[in-house]
Amino acid sequence: MQKVTEYLRSNQARFIEDLCDYVRFPSVSAQPEHRKDLKACAEWLVKHCKGIGLETRLCTTEGNPIVVAKTPRKKGVRRPHYMVYGHYDVQPPEPFDLWKTPPFEPTIRGSSMFGRGASDNKGQNLAHLTAAEAYIKTGTELPCDLTFVIEGEEEVGSKSLAAFLVKNQAELTCDAVVISDTGIPAKQLPALTYALRGIAAFEIIIHGPSRDLHSGIFGGSVDNPAMALAQILAKLRDKNGRITIPGFYDDVAPLSTYERKQMARLPGSEKEFARFLGVPKLFGEKGFTANEQRMARPTFEINGLTSGYQGEGSKTIVPSWARVKITMRLVPNQNPGKIIKSFRSYLTKLCPPTVRMEIKSGHGAEPYIVSPTSSEAQAALRALKSAFGKEPVLMREGGSIPIVNQFKKYLRADTLLLGLALPDDNAHSPNEKFDLELFEKGQLMSAHLWQELPKK
Amino acid sequence: MQKVTEYLRSNQARFIEDLCDYVRFPSVSAQPEHRKDLKACAEWLVKHCKGIGLETRLCTTEGNPIVVAKTPRKKGVRRPHYMVYGHYDVQPPEPFDLWKTPPFEPTIRGSSMFGRGASDNKGQNLAHLTAAEAYIKTGTELPCDLTFVIEGEEEVGSKSLAAFLVKNQAELTCDAVVISDTGIPAKQLPALTYALRGIAAFEIIIHGPSRDLHSGIFGGSVDNPAMALAQILAKLRDKNGRITIPGFYDDVAPLSTYERKQMARLPGSEKEFARFLGVPKLFGEKGFTANEQRMARPTFEINGLTSGYQGEGSKTIVPSWARVKITMRLVPNQNPGKIIKSFRSYLTKLCPPTVRMEIKSGHGAEPYIVSPTSSEAQAALRALKSAFGKEPVLMREGGSIPIVNQFKKYLRADTLLLGLALPDDNAHSPNEKFDLELFEKGQLMSAHLWQELPKK
Repeated sequence: MQKVTEYLRSNQARFIEDLCDYVRFPSVSAQPEHRKDLKACAEWLVKHCKGIGLETRLCTTEGNPIVVAKTPRKKGVRRPHYMVYGHYDVQPPEPFDLWKTPPFEPTIRGSSMFGRGASDNKGQNLAHLTAAEAYIKTGTELPCDLTFVIEGEEEVGSKSLAAFLVKNQAELTCDAVVISDTGIPAKQLPALTYALRGIAAFEIIIHGPSRDLHSGIFGGSVDNPAMALAQILAKLRDKNGRITIPGFYDDVAPLSTYERKQMARLPGSEKEFARFLGVPKLFGEKGFTANEQRMARPTFEINGLTSGYQGEGSKTIVPSWARVKITMRLVPNQNPGKIIKSFRSYLTKLCPPTVRMEIKSGHGAEPYIVSPTSSEAQAALRALKSAFGKEPVLMREGGSIPIVNQFKKYLRADTLLLGLALPDDNAHSPNEKFDLELFEKGQLMSAHLWQELPKK
Repeated sequence: MQKVTEYLRSNQARFIEDLCDYVRFPSVSAQPEHRKDLKACAEWLVKHCKGIGLETRLCTTEGNPIVVAKTPRKKGVRRPHYMVYGHYDVQPPEPFDLWKTPPFEPTIRGSSMFGRGASDNKGQNLAHLTAAEAYIKTGTELPCDLTFVIEGEEEVGSKSLAAFLVKNQAELTCDAVVISDTGIPAKQLPALTYALRGIAAFEIIIHGPSRDLHSGIFGGSVDNPAMALAQILAKLRDKNGRITIPGFYDDVAPLSTYERKQMARLPGSEKEFARFLGVPKLFGEKGFTANEQRMARPTFEINGLTSGYQGEGSKTIVPSWARVKITMRLVPNQNPGKIIKSFRSYLTKLCPPTVRMEIKSGHGAEPYIVSPTSSEAQAALRALKSAFGKEPVLMREGGSIPIVNQFKKYLRADTLLLGLALPDDNAHSPNEKFDLELFEKGQLMSAHLWQELPKK
């Protein structure tokens, strides 16, 4: 291992140049005019992977190609196999005028590289490739087999990934998936994200009179659909911030003392957090800290309201309809299907006979968890500690990463989320940056991970 | 009186021709390009009034001119004085393609004259002028003095009327104002509208986080302003349809048995009414009929809701703010100022500390009532009965007519609302029409009114 870490230490300048080359591609998957830039970026990756000694190929899909790169296999030996997932496509750079330096001309200021995709996700997946390079170039034997899968449609919903996984199931089946595409709370605070929330989306439309009515002539004798909607919504959350849908909390895996202790180690006070959000006072489910509420507890959020007249001044109508858009965040082990069913039947009960209700279910995603005491999680924590020289924290992430559920479904593998993005890295915003000290720490972490993971 | 009624009977054909001439003017006050048509229409009115023997002048205002026409006064005698109000301006005719015949080419089909302004308000104010003509032309002495005030800005908010009333207060002060500009429930059902609802408009904005937040990362730890708004709104109306603002009903004048009996005489069942509105079931304040609810009881209506994402699909945010537009309809003797104060203080009590509330008050108008047992109301009922040969009904109107409050304020006079517009007259819509039998009945009603009103 000493040769590996020495190789990494002494080649940082070149690695940063490699990252510059990688970031220069405007590989914006949301914009059709960049299709050729995505292809060129994928081809650059193939060349780079071959150059560092990986057996590499470009897999065509219905969308952008996927790069598959494998470390040299040891003939006749069945070793642990890990997949490293990343993506070479990036978010659109707009608005351009808010960038201090052009998004596709990577620029180093202080300890950061600025450029679209530097953090999300080029810098993070290149860190893993660099660790593999160090093993191969120093002739250090890896105690496991690695397969890199780097796709080009993550920012537009990974549409081709499921078919690709199905097609290459035998080759890709592995003992665990490793992804560096999430956050790290601070430069000196390495973290393993071990759980994600799921999601269930709804749209509810309350239909009242067949057209907007004059509120002077008819108002008072007919229910107001916006009021009916408000009264239904109001009943869905109690004063303790608990969601009132019958059975909603039945399957929620309780937070262990160990997990709560870990979450309490995250930096920042609730007062600072309220100031950061710009609210007079925080609000959430009683009995949980703000971090627990936003990372590890289920939620019910109104995302949008629409009814009647929305312009200047007033219009004296009883509106014909009112609509709400809702998403719930679900946590392990809630089942979206069960929640959707219970919600629909509760809504039917709450809806008064004076209006007609229409419910549309939108997208859904399962929540995700890897036990923080599993051997994989513990191995990841050891690798983080070796790389950073600090005790890592265990985190849950409040958002959803649907591909993680695909890996579970198609490859039967758990995913270790070892993010390197700082909270101020501006992923998806102008002036995206990646911290170059974390680039190096990430390479080290990856190198250690392949030592730790195969240990049982 | 026999000479008067005979004159009216035998001159119908010419009166209809006069109405055609009047309707031909495209006197659309909302459209600046019709300014000259408004002036031409006012000048035609002056000429017409002079021709039938009224002392007439055109009063300039900051907007369109007002026609003032007076019956010949009896020297040295102080007689009861009544003002007849009307307006010569009309609503815009658009959309043109929905008209069966051009809006400003009056056309008779069946017993109706079709044309913009035929019902609202040219036909109705010409009926009153025609009655005065009959008295003058037959040399029949009027037992009172009449002043016709016909303005040209009613459809755009009567902006010049208040200044005009103040300037001509001495001349216009009168014992009662008569307006035919409201509805009649059916051809065979003459009606006196004796009360109007007032109004108070509000906009409430609930401010949450300083920007839309990612519901995965932050959701659960911060209040959702759309939910906070729903929970505030939900508390404002109870399950019996009663508004919960403290003191809201304190000043409401109770409906007398006489009034409720009158309202029960209006045609149509509640089942038919629900079908007409297109709702599965009517809803309103418990203990009152639908007609009472919409005509004589105060209401609280949500006119519009706005928050967060309103486009296709879903956007997983905690919105930064949520807004509601509200109008309340107020009834005699509720005081808008008192209600506004009570509502604001109740809202402050309902608003949770986790969001910030902003309340904007909009326009307001006082409710209006003339006692249905007053001598003026009783005189109007006798005149209606004489003209129609049927027992008239007493009605309240759920909307507001702000000028009525101006007459009360500047002229200290009550207003008798003796509308001739049928429910299907399409006022403000394409194919506006006026029933020519009601035109004649209206003339007779006016002729009788001047006999009945001076009786104490």
